[in-house]
Amino acid sequence: MQVTSETTSGGVAERSFTVGDIRGTVWTSAGTPSASPLILLGHGGGQHQGSEALAARARRYVTDGGFAVAAIDLPGHGARPRTERYQQLLAAIRDNAAEGAPRASEVRRYNAELAAQPVPEWQEMLDALLTLDEIAEPVGYWGVSMGTAIGIRLLAAEPRITAAVLGLAHGRALLPLAASITIPIEFLLQWNDDLVPREAGLALFDAFASEEKSLHANPGRHHEIPFFELESSQRFFARHLRARTGPLFPD
Amino acid sequence: MQVTSETTSGGVAERSFTVGDIRGTVWTSAGTPSASPLILLGHGGGQHQGSEALAARARRYVTDGGFAVAAIDLPGHGARPRTERYQQLLAAIRDNAAEGAPRASEVRRYNAELAAQPVPEWQEMLDALLTLDEIAEPVGYWGVSMGTAIGIRLLAAEPRITAAVLGLAHGRALLPLAASITIPIEFLLQWNDDLVPREAGLALFDAFASEEKSLHANPGRHHEIPFFELESSQRFFARHLRARTGPLFPD
Repeated sequence: MQVTSETTSGGVAERSFTVGDIRGTVWTSAGTPSASPLILLGHGGGQHQGSEALAARARRYVTDGGFAVAAIDLPGHGARPRTERYQQLLAAIRDNAAEGAPRASEVRRYNAELAAQPVPEWQEMLDALLTLDEIAEPVGYWGVSMGTAIGIRLLAAEPRITAAVLGLAHGRALLPLAASITIPIEFLLQWNDDLVPREAGLALFDAFASEEKSLHANPGRHHEIPFFELESSQRFFARHLRARTGPLFPD
Repeated sequence: MQVTSETTSGGVAERSFTVGDIRGTVWTSAGTPSASPLILLGHGGGQHQGSEALAARARRYVTDGGFAVAAIDLPGHGARPRTERYQQLLAAIRDNAAEGAPRASEVRRYNAELAAQPVPEWQEMLDALLTLDEIAEPVGYWGVSMGTAIGIRLLAAEPRITAAVLGLAHGRALLPLAASITIPIEFLLQWNDDLVPREAGLALFDAFASEEKSLHANPGRHHEIPFFELESSQRFFARHLRARTGPLFPD
């Protein structure tokens, strides 16, 4: 793990790093002496590990939740090479979007082809991150849309991850993977999703074998997850990755 | 409004009262000098305004949320007379339960017949509660199962209620009422509900005209709502009934 830059602001240390040829960012509390649980962020299609929305989420989890957070560029995103095949998949989505046609099948194909590759990358990065003094198990995962298409494969392979926020995804290939997952899941569904058919999203939630799983469905399209779900995800991670800081029934 | 008894414990003042011939309880912070927003609790079938689960929820909303809370006995419950018709409806549910048969239609009939009556009672109680120095608008409503069958009718009639947690209910009669409701709603659904068919529960959530509505679905049967939904409801009410106590993005 090579740290390529480090900055600190607002109590959060932000380090850019590479593991092999994969770029990532890790955010930790600048002032915490002891090791914190880690949340991995899987970005959505078209975003990357350094995007503003992802960085804002990471900083929030550090400052309000007391977590360490890490993200890496997924294949074909950020600084990573876009292969000819990825360009084709992306062009198919853009063409359909321009025509106003449904893009669900193209997005699913794109996610499926991207999703096979990064699991060993995430695992290698996790090995490296857990060597840092500021980070210790347990580990959580947050990722919706493409971040779920990839995340489900990661969860199925990686026992160190013990809680995950997923959603905005579907596809028959994901159902047997979901059925192999037993960790607590918070699952986001947009009630008027323009990319994920409602029934298919409900079917994916249904497929998880987890004893604790919560579906959070809100009105709006694919990219319109309400802000309060960020706060909800933080509390979900706090419940599963940290000892409680106070009694739930104080009296 | 006649106060019939008053006790204080753990920082919570609990007063039993009557409005006309209806019994209720109001919980307020024993130490708060200023007026608090009010949450009305609608109990479920077979429970009453003094039941232990309801009282625990009320105390939690007071101590952790800073709210005032009130509950009244719904018709045929608690100290209220059980008319012959209510006895018949209840017997039909018990008979079916004993045989292991589906009870959904009996429960729906029971809820519908009970639900028409208490709206003016709630409104009269609300008038009385809002004369107390410790209580001020806005007002929220929490009630699932029968508490929703009744609550939806109350929300449709009562503009002082500006946010509600509902769920575990269905029925065609409720759909047009839900379609008239525009306040923020948190809606609970049990994924393996033995009384509410999943599709019918989803259809009721779908029917609300609210711009902000969140479906929270969890595994388990009708009475197995997970504990963390209590905390979630408290945060929902805090978001809608109180000014925020801190910034959501602190940096």
